This record gives sequence, C-alpha cells and structure tokens, in this order.
Amino acid sequence: MNHKSMQSINVGVVGCGYWGPKLIRNFYEIPGSNLRMVCDLRPDRLEHVHNLYGVPVTQSFDELLRSDVAAVAIATPVSTHYRLARAALEAGKDILIEKPLTDNAGQAQELVELAERNGRILMVGHTYEYNPAVEYLRNLIAQGDLGTVYYANAIRVNLGIFQQDINVVWDLAPHDISILIYILGATPITASARGRAYVQPGIQDVAYVTLDFPGGVMADIRVSWLDPCKIRRLTVVGSRKMVVYDDVEPTEKIKIYDKGVDGPRYSDTLEEFHLSYRFGNITTPAISNEEPLKIECQHFLECVRTRQRPRSDGRSGLRVVSILEAADHSLHNGGLREEVHYRC
Amino acid sequence: MNHKSMQSINVGVVGCGYWGPKLIRNFYEIPGSNLRMVCDLRPDRLEHVHNLYGVPVTQSFDELLRSDVAAVAIATPVSTHYRLARAALEAGKDILIEKPLTDNAGQAQELVELAERNGRILMVGHTYEYNPAVEYLRNLIAQGDLGTVYYANAIRVNLGIFQQDINVVWDLAPHDISILIYILGATPITASARGRAYVQPGIQDVAYVTLDFPGGVMADIRVSWLDPCKIRRLTVVGSRKMVVYDDVEPTEKIKIYDKGVDGPRYSDTLEEFHLSYRFGNITTPAISNEEPLKIECQHFLECVRTRQRPRSDGRSGLRVVSILEAADHSLHNGGLREEVHYRC
Amino acid sequence: MNHKSMQSINVGVVGCGYWGPKLIRNFYEIPGSNLRMVCDLRPDRLEHVHNLYGVPVTQSFDELLRSDVAAVAIATPVSTHYRLARAALEAGKDILIEKPLTDNAGQAQELVELAERNGRILMVGHTYEYNPAVEYLRNLIAQGDLGTVYYANAIRVNLGIFQQDINVVWDLAPHDISILIYILGATPITASARGRAYVQPGIQDVAYVTLDFPGGVMADIRVSWLDPCKIRRLTVVGSRKMVVYDDVEPTEKIKIYDKGVDGPRYSDTLEEFHLSYRFGNITTPAISNEEPLKIECQHFLECVRTRQRPRSDGRSGLRVVSILEAADHSLHNGGLREEVHYRC
Amino acid sequence: MNHKSMQSINVGVVGCGYWGPKLIRNFYEIPGSNLRMVCDLRPDRLEHVHNLYGVPVTQSFDELLRSDVAAVAIATPVSTHYRLARAALEAGKDILIEKPLTDNAGQAQELVELAERNGRILMVGHTYEYNPAVEYLRNLIAQGDLGTVYYANAIRVNLGIFQQDINVVWDLAPHDISILIYILGATPITASARGRAYVQPGIQDVAYVTLDFPGGVMADIRVSWLDPCKIRRLTVVGSRKMVVYDDVEPTEKIKIYDKGVDGPRYSDTLEEFHLSYRFGNITTPAISNEEPLKIECQHFLECVRTRQRPRSDGRSGLRVVSILEAADHSLHNGGLREEVHYRC
Repeated sequence: MNHKSMQSINVGVVGCGYWGPKLIRNFYEIPGSNLRMVCDLRPDRLEHVHNLYGVPVTQSFDELLRSDVAAVAIATPVSTHYRLARAALEAGKDILIEKPLTDNAGQAQELVELAERNGRILMVGHTYEYNPAVEYLRNLIAQGDLGTVYYANAIRVNLGIFQQDINVVWDLAPHDISILIYILGATPITASARGRAYVQPGIQDVAYVTLDFPGGVMADIRVSWLDPCKIRRLTVVGSRKMVVYDDVEPTEKIKIYDKGVDGPRYSDTLEEFHLSYRFGNITTPAISNEEPLKIECQHFLECVRTRQRPRSDGRSGLRVVSILEAADHSLHNGGLREEVHYRC
Repeated sequence: MNHKSMQSINVGVVGCGYWGPKLIRNFYEIPGSNLRMVCDLRPDRLEHVHNLYGVPVTQSFDELLRSDVAAVAIATPVSTHYRLARAALEAGKDILIEKPLTDNAGQAQELVELAERNGRILMVGHTYEYNPAVEYLRNLIAQGDLGTVYYANAIRVNLGIFQQDINVVWDLAPHDISILIYILGATPITASARGRAYVQPGIQDVAYVTLDFPGGVMADIRVSWLDPCKIRRLTVVGSRKMVVYDDVEPTEKIKIYDKGVDGPRYSDTLEEFHLSYRFGNITTPAISNEEPLKIECQHFLECVRTRQRPRSDGRSGLRVVSILEAADHSLHNGGLREEVHYRC
Repeated sequence: MNHKSMQSINVGVVGCGYWGPKLIRNFYEIPGSNLRMVCDLRPDRLEHVHNLYGVPVTQSFDELLRSDVAAVAIATPVSTHYRLARAALEAGKDILIEKPLTDNAGQAQELVELAERNGRILMVGHTYEYNPAVEYLRNLIAQGDLGTVYYANAIRVNLGIFQQDINVVWDLAPHDISILIYILGATPITASARGRAYVQPGIQDVAYVTLDFPGGVMADIRVSWLDPCKIRRLTVVGSRKMVVYDDVEPTEKIKIYDKGVDGPRYSDTLEEFHLSYRFGNITTPAISNEEPLKIECQHFLECVRTRQRPRSDGRSGLRVVSILEAADHSLHNGGLREEVHYRC
Repeated sequence: MNHKSMQSINVGVVGCGYWGPKLIRNFYEIPGSNLRMVCDLRPDRLEHVHNLYGVPVTQSFDELLRSDVAAVAIATPVSTHYRLARAALEAGKDILIEKPLTDNAGQAQELVELAERNGRILMVGHTYEYNPAVEYLRNLIAQGDLGTVYYANAIRVNLGIFQQDINVVWDLAPHDISILIYILGATPITASARGRAYVQPGIQDVAYVTLDFPGGVMADIRVSWLDPCKIRRLTVVGSRKMVVYDDVEPTEKIKIYDKGVDGPRYSDTLEEFHLSYRFGNITTPAISNEEPLKIECQHFLECVRTRQRPRSDGRSGLRVVSILEAADHSLHNGGLREEVHYRC
C-alpha cells in the first residue's frame, strides 16, 4: 500500500552500487516522490534494497521502462549511461543521470538533442551545485567580495574507491569541474592533464588537471584514489579576499580570509619597492547542513512537475564531458594543453 | 674580548635580510664558531645586528674578504650569489651559500669548478637535508618500508614573502627539489612547470612543478606566495605504506599510514574484479626537534675543519639549479616537459 | 507484507523523538528483526515514521503491549522510563531501554528485580559499550599496555540539546560513566559534582563530575549543553602510556602516546633530583567503523533469542543510576563528595 | 663598549633556569635596557649566558645588589622569591618577579607593603596580561560583545615540566587566574581544588581548580603536568556569544562564535516548551603576534622610568597568591570550597 500523496511523481532507480542506494533513500523519503521500482543486474543488491524499502525490484531495465514510472534516476557505470539514458528518453521518461553524463562528448550531445527534441527533462547529478557551501561561495564571488578572482586550487583525494571502467579524472574531476564552472560563472578555454596508473595497468589513479579560464584565471585540480588522507579542499584566491572550502570539515566548511597583497605602484624613482600585505579577520559563515543530494532530488522532481530546465541540465553535463574529454586527451598526450570544444 | 674557544673557525656573514640573521644567531651561538664580521649594504640592518651581538659590521664585502675570516656564509639576493661566491672562493674562503646556488646552471657550474680547483668548501644551504624529519623519511624509504615508491606530492604555500628578483619557483621549489632528491636517492629526468604572475607583472607568484623521476615516480610541487594558509606538506605514496610529512605541525611532523591497495590478480575468468584495500595503523614517530639550521651550520663548520665534502655540496646545488632552469624554461614555454641537463 | 525471515524477533519501539528513529531504523534494517509497531504520543512523529517505513503506528502503549511483539525498545523521556518499563516487563516483554535507566536508584532496583523475577531481558542502551573504539581501549587497559592507570578526563560538550526533565549530568554523564566502568573494570567509590543552570532555571546546563575509583584513580567529567564546540574526548593516563579517544574524529579516534615520566629514585644524597621523560611514538590503531547502535541492537536481539544476560544489563544500568544519584546529590549540596550506594 | 643609549635602565637578572634566559634575551635586546649583570648559583648556566651575551655574571646575589643596576628581574624557584625580593627592595631596587609572587600570602603582603613604603616598583610577571590575545578578549568582554558572561573553562596541560618545590596548582594555575581576573574585571569569592600526586609523592601533578566569581560566574581550571597533549585553551561562554582562546594555535588564537540559546519565555499554557538556538558566523580576529614577554619587559622598564604603577603590580600578585592559597588549602582538605581572603 502506498503511503505517499496521490500527486507524487512515480520514480524508478537503476543501479544499486555505491551511489544508487543514496538516490533510492531520497526518492523513498522525499514527500511528492513515489519510489515505484528499482533495477539492477545483481540479485543480492536487489534483495537488499527490497528488504530495506519493500519496493518492487527487477533485473530488467525494459520492465522498468514499461512500468508507470515517469522519472528514471540512473546510477550505473558510466559506460552504460548512453544506452540506458537513450532508451529511457525514447520511452518518454524524464531522467536524472549520474555524472559524468557519458564517457564521450559525441554521445552526450546526442542525449542532449534527444531530450530537447522529445521535450524530456535531462538532468545530470552534479550534486555539488546543490551544496549550500558551494552556493555560498558562488554568491560571494558574484557579489565581488573576493575582488578579481586570480586562481583556484582543488584537491580531491582519498584511498579508493578505484573504478574499473574509467580513470580517476573521469571519476573525481567532474565534481570540481562542475563546481568551478558554477562558482566562476565561466567555462575553461583549455584543459591539460598528467597522471599515472600505479595499481591497475592503463587506468590512471593519480592525476593533475589544469583548466585555463578566461581572464587568466588558472584552476588546478589534483585527484587521486591513492592517498592516505581524505581531502576535499578548494581554495579560491582573489585580489581582495581568499576562501577555503573544506568539504571534509563537519561544520566549518568555508573560511573567508580577509588577506591579500597589494602590488607595487609605479614610480619614477629607484626607491625600494614595497608590497603591502593585509592580514585581517577570518570569517566562517554559518552554512545550512541540508543534504545536497536531497536538494538535488527535490529539484529534479520540481523540474519534472513544472517542466523547467534543471540547474544542472544536459548541456551542463555535456560541457563537463567536453572538458573531461580534452583533459583525457592531454593525459594520453604528454600533458599538452588542449582546447576544449564545446558542442552547445 | 672573545669568549669562544681558541680552535674556533672565524666566520663572516653577508646579508642581514630575512634569512641572514638566523645564520648570524647560529654562528654566534654554536661552540667552535667565532663570528667575526657581518656585511650588508643597509646601515640600519647592520646597526640592528651590531646592537644584538656586538659583532663588527661593514658595508664593504672587500673588507670582509680582507679580514681573518676563514668561512663566509652568504645570504643575499640570488642575483648576487655568483659574484659574491666567486670573489669569496678566489679570496680563499670556504663558503656556505643560500639556495638556490645561482640563478643559472652555467654560473653554478663555474662555482663548483672553481671551488674544486681551489680546494675550497662550497656548501649550499639546502636546510631540509639537515632536518631530522626529512632524515627519518629518507631512512624509511631506504629501508623499503614504503615498498615501491609510486609518487610524491609537495605543497609549499603561504601569503608572502614576495621576492622581486626571482619567481616563486626559484624561491620555494628548491626546498622540495632538494628534499625529493635526498629522500628518493635519485634525480629527475624531466621537469615541467606552469604558473601565473598575479601581483607583480612578469614574476610568477603561483606555480606547479612536475618532476619525472626514473621508474615512473612522479613528483608534483605546488608553490605559491598567494595562499591564505601556510601549508608545507609532503605526501609520499608507496606500494606498502604512505607517509605525510607536515612541516607546519609543531610535534607530529610525520605520519606513516599502513594503508594500501593491492591490484587485481590476473585470471582467465570473467568473475568480478577485486581490489583489496588495507587500512592499518597510523604511526607518528618521535622526531628530534633540533633546529635544522643549527645542524647545517655545525656540519659546515665540521667540513671546514676536516675538509670533508658537505652533504649538500656545490654539485648538489648545481643539480637543483639545473632542475630549476628546466622548470623555468617550461614555465615560459607553455608547460612543455623539459629534459634536465645535469652538468656534473 | 513482511519481507523478513520467519525466525525474526517481533520488535516494538516506543518514542520517536531524537533517539527513537535511530532505533527504528536499526530494527527495520537488521536481519532477524521484525519491526512490528511504533508508539508515540505525537501524531506528526508517527506519521513521519509510518511514511518512512510503512510500519503500523499507535498512540496507545497498551495497544503495543497487547500486540505480538516480544521485545520493546523504549526511547522516551527519562521520567516515563519506570512506568513504561514496568508495564512492559509485567506484560512479559523483553526490553531495551535508553540510558539512564530511571531517574532514581530505587525504581531502577525495582525494575532489575522485576525483570529477574519474571525471567525477562532488561538491557540498558549504554551505546558506548558497543563502540569498537571503547572496546579497543578496554582491551588496551586490560592487557596492561598503559601500565598502572593514573587518571581519566572526559569532556562531552556542545551547544544543545537542552533537556527539560533532567539536567546535563543525568543527560550526558551516563555515557562517560558507563565507558569508565567498562574500560576500568571497576566502579567508583565516591562521586561529587558542581554545576550551574544558566539558561533554564533549576536545570543545570554546565557541570563537572568527579569520580574516585579504587586505587587512587581519579576520573573527571565535564559536561555542558552550552559550549561553542562539539567535543567528546576521553584522556586516560597510565604509568607507561597515555591514550586519547576523540569520538568526534571521523577516522583517527584513538591515539596511543608512548609517553611518560619516571619518578625519582630515592637516594641518600642531596644531589639534584631528576625525572626522566619519555617521548616515543604515537600510534593510531585502525578501528572498525561499524555503527555502535547497530551492534547494540544486534546484541539485544541475540540476548532475546538465547536468553543470555546482556553486556549492559539492568544491574549495569542501576550502577550508573546510583552514581548519577550520588553526583546529583553532591550537585545540590555544594559539591561535597558523596559515597555511592550500590544496591546490587 | 656599550652599544645602547645612555638613558638606558641598568638591569640585573637573577635565575638562569627555564624562564630566566627569556628575560635575559629581552633585556639584552630591548632598546632602553642595559643588561648589566646576571646571577645564578650554577656556574655552567652562568658560563652559557656569558658566552651568549657577553654580560658579566656572578654567583653572588649581594654582588648584584651592590652593582649599579636599578632594576632586578627575579626568575628563581618560588621558595626563594620572598628572600630575594625583600633584599632587592631593601637595597632600593625596582623589581620584576616571576609568578607566583611568593608561596604564601603573608609574605606576599609583606613585599607589597615594603615596596609601597620604599617607593619601589614591584611588578609580577603575569605574562598573559601582556598577551595581545588576552587583551583582545578583555576588550570583547568589556564592550559587552559576549552579553552576560556565564562561565569560563581553562585547560593548561602538557607532559612536564614537573616542579619539585611547588605542585601543579601553584605552577600552572597562576596563568589562568591572572587571565580570568584580568578579562572578567573581578576577583573570585571562593576557590576549591582537587588533585592527585602520581609521580612525585606529595606533589600534586594533576589538579582541578574551581573559582566562583560574583554574579554566578563559574570558572574551572584544569592543570596537569601529566597529559599526552599540550593544550592551553580558554573557553568563555556568554549569553550572546562564546569565545575560545587557543594559545597553542600559531595564528588563529581566538575564535568568536555567534552562537547561543535563548531560554523559555514564561507562559500559562502547557504548550510545548521551546528553546531557540542561534548558530551564526565564527570570526577569527587578526591578533598581533608580538611577544608578550617583550611587551611585559618594556612595560616594566617604562614603569621604572615614569614611576607609574605596573598593570600587574604587587597587589595583583598578592591577589593571585591569596587565591592559590585558598585553592591549595582546599586541595588538602577534600576539595571543600574555601573563601578567598584578600589582604589588600
């Protein structure tokens, strides 16, 4: 018996690996969502989910598509994204799909065009764009509090979870790339990357990605599955202030440093050159600790209901894939800087 | 009246800026050292030093060279190193010179050859090679505790101190380059660097250096004068263990993580792939907190006395300059990987 | 329809406030548990829980007792514990009840006797006794790794959650008291406490409790609902080693310091007295991150099945209440040291 | 030849143990101070100091008093304070004496009266009153930023340095007592203390001190020579804001939490009781990192010159000794609360 309201959206979820259960829990709990079916190839995972939530389960994606679900959330390995998303869109479903949208820009573009042609919602799970700390950081920059943004540095490392079908750049960098585009309000012109595969031959587990944004803004991203510490840290340095966003901190996620250095004023004399340093207060704003994934799922349901374009829509997903593609090309090409070709 | 022993080495120090006074204090305090004269161009700095230690001071480097000092410590801007070091060596002095040895490899080579020809001690102030934590790390690696070393990541950032005659790579990266060579027991084959000059036109204040060591060991160094936090952190990841050396920590400088991941064993079946993660203890060894600069100065005096070759001799300084030169070339050449040409 | 195995224990939960939902989730998810009914006075809380888990709900505790549940978990305000527990025990149910068992030792003793007379399981939710970090600490001490235990210091402070029916000693100190008894393998002889009520008249929100254990072991506990930081930290100092257990740390919960000081050897001379300090390694053991409450709930179900006495049985709960009673008496009596009267 | 100005104060220092050399360095370096003589009973300490600073040394305190020093800084064991201070005051010297002023209030009062009778400066080395972070905290409270101050908690623990002539309360608590009096602008009415002697029989090495200030402000101080971690942390909780002063932090010493909880408004109904929590920003102010001891020494010299009463004068030292005496009495009397008898 269904204990949710009648105006709910019928939702199906595909994929019960690491991330899928988090989507399942949210679509199970959020008012206005009616979790109707869960699909995976592994019987044990299905049994686990069925035991937890009592939701019907299936190994057949076709059965899910033939059901009365209006919306499908896809959390399967990246290599299956294109096929599953296309089938779901063609079956008339709205979809929320995990990042990265696909493992190549051509297929991402196809999905974007298919969704737009069919009037379907295509939303990509760039969860950090729904994170209150990232929202705070975006507003801070937009209001000019940092002055001119000089550069950004992102670190996202930990021991594990090693992927088998994609390297660490495709696995972890989408988070930082989507954050950077969102907070800077711009897309990078070029990308380059270097990395090494230490544990699994041919699959880089440690990598460095550099993005050049317009106006000389340099963004560097360090990703690793092979680091002793869990670090998720983004530093943004501006001419007036500097910010550190530490996602591992339980409460003090953002610190704003009223620090800086003022360059030399030009003069005709040979007197000693002086830089002036500023060391002011540090402020840690109170940030809502609402679960970003819950906000994301609510936004998806709202878009399904109102037919509005999601914040992290297919074009956003395509942009990220285009950048990943350029970075990956550089990774296999000695780290040469690659121009990013955006298809939309 | 002199209150030191008669067998002391007479020492002169050139340069009373940021680093010079630390050398002066050590050569003033260490038994067996007789601080005889201090030289700088700025009268106010000389007066300050004279008031503190009562040592004779001079604005004339020639006067210092004509004095009875046997050993000269040089802590002046890099651009003056070559000229001062050559003059001191030609005057028959043993020298301890701050890193980097010079701002180009050709002149570094000249100094090395001059010192060897004249039988003079030429020691470069790679202070970290005298740091007990670095020593510990070196032994750990040498004993094989980390297994095969995979990669290293170094961060050395802070707000300030901006230099005017050299960029942040020449200023900060020598520390990490000398540490890496020392603990890995190898020299990098190639170097590359990217960076930007945000505050002072033409002088990079934020940069990333990559060094490729033999055997696929990748080392990345992030240096910045423009960061809100003081971070000095080196991560070394091996196949058996991982280490973090955090130089900003007052006591727990080294943490050894008994963590790792074991790669897939090859098999003929299509069964699910498994990596096995290890999460063991973390150990923080007790490390001597003796001042590294004091150990360095004592080593210099010992070399002067015994005519032994210093641990961080001129050839070591030349190697570091050769790497910096390659990195700097890359920095001005779009980040292209440059082979390092060692001259000795 | 029930999706759990037939050999499951039928469980009912009373109380859907802060803690109840955590019990509900566990008894919903744990294999071998069959969550049959949830009881609370507040319709909105019942609706919330029903929506999440589809479990039958009721405002009537009698209805719960008349149902086919064999085991009842009680997570209601302390002042209701005695009445609810007695009714459940008299109805033949096994019970798991939140700490503190009751708000006075006389009623706690009655419950212990009632349970023993009726052959019912009475288990108290001293969750920390099921915490792998506490288990580790207990073993460390039992094995003599710390040498002679000198003293312990516990801090448990945060902003909120203010209780209205009990003061901060009754609310937070049970955690530390049960941990101390468990790891030291002993019960305190005397208790004293001082505190103040700043926010709610008559309800202390900041307090200090001192327990004297046999052998001169002093344990001090600081509890507060009115502190800017969340701190949960236990220091145990022994003659050979010292340990800090920081429950707020996500992974490095326990640090073992091989540190100490050796006292003076007696001598007949007046020579200068010397203490010898030891500063050895720090070790952070790998600790399982299994949810303690899950282990606790599993242990309860196991005891229900096998009729064994729970680790944190009624007598254990009574001991803690006896200590709290003595501390509370001291709190209202100028901080005078009170002997603890154990009733079993 | 003297390299200081002619208007300098001639200073002598007694005691070359742990603290003395810090005073010696400051009186050697500060302009306007003329370090004339250093006294200690141990020849090796005198030789060390002479070698460092070239200052005349003596084993005879009388010789120091007969010299031309106008001011004497005393950093000897507490048990010698009274005798040395009295002799110095009687010889017409101004004195700066380490805390605690004496080991009993009667002798402290004698010194205060002697200094006042003879018109001599008597300053006690309550260094924290010259610490910019403490100054900041005092102003914050004075301006009402915290609202009503509720309570304070101080922790000052580490492994070592064990004293032999005084217990840990006399050794470490003077710091926190002087800080509390200074920032709260009030003196405690009662004191109590509990503690144990684990390493040296009869000399408490772990202790807890409680001070009751007027208006219900409770201050608790934990001191220990026997803790694995160095902690120096003061929490002050007010009705509007809360502050943590962490003296071990290299730069972010003070954090101001805009947090609080508002109590229940009285009502006639039985509706559910509500407290309202506030979780606002955290601010870390920029604090000068000037050495507190240098500021203290400069203040002493200024008082000697201008004959003004020092901030931490003899009466201030006597107050602290009176509180220590009451706490020590409690420590030996089962922790009973003792009224503090101020003698001035």
